[in-house]
Amino acid sequence: MLQRRAGREQPVDRVFHALADPHRRVIVERLSRGPATVSELARPLPMSLSAVVQHLQVLQGSGLVRSEKLGRVRTCRIEPAALRPVERWIGARRSSWERRLDRLGDYLAEDND
Amino acid sequence: MLQRRAGREQPVDRVFHALADPHRRVIVERLSRGPATVSELARPLPMSLSAVVQHLQVLQGSGLVRSEKLGRVRTCRIEPAALRPVERWIGARRSSWERRLDRLGDYLAEDND
Repeated sequence: MLQRRAGREQPVDRVFHALADPHRRVIVERLSRGPATVSELARPLPMSLSAVVQHLQVLQGSGLVRSEKLGRVRTCRIEPAALRPVERWIGARRSSWERRLDRLGDYLAEDND
Repeated sequence: MLQRRAGREQPVDRVFHALADPHRRVIVERLSRGPATVSELARPLPMSLSAVVQHLQVLQGSGLVRSEKLGRVRTCRIEPAALRPVERWIGARRSSWERRLDRLGDYLAEDND
């Protein structure tokens, strides 16, 4: 299973990678409040417009952001569903170690009897 | 604020980066079920022991994993608290776009009156 999984990049790899950069997270934070044009997204960021466009390409490649162009203006939107595999993965880990803590709790309780 | 944030790597950057690799996620999945030695972690992974050690270094750098050596055996454990900043960030985005959907719902309801 591991070899099959390792053979190609999974969507969850791309989402984690996209979110590993603080500027890309600022873009996602802004888009979580509503759609924005590329210029609006670029305004608070300390970088060139072409650097912002590169970050947007990474975000679009991960599925977190989609955009459409009307005339000369490109508007970006968030795609909340793209975060779900990452939320599921984190949730599964938390359940796993909480079960482990419960078992440890049971063991310690038995030990006290 | 942005420039201050961009100036140095944040813990959340390192956690997202650490989790962007499927093999590192397999290691975290295994450690979520309990501590393991480096050899135990390496067994199911299709790579050299030194490649596994490199992945473990990335995971330790992110704070997700800690290890201790007793004699010649190094045992690794998960550090669940290190996932919290990532969970908080994702949770805040979800609240943000759910509020936006609520406002859209209110607007559409008013429009129907």
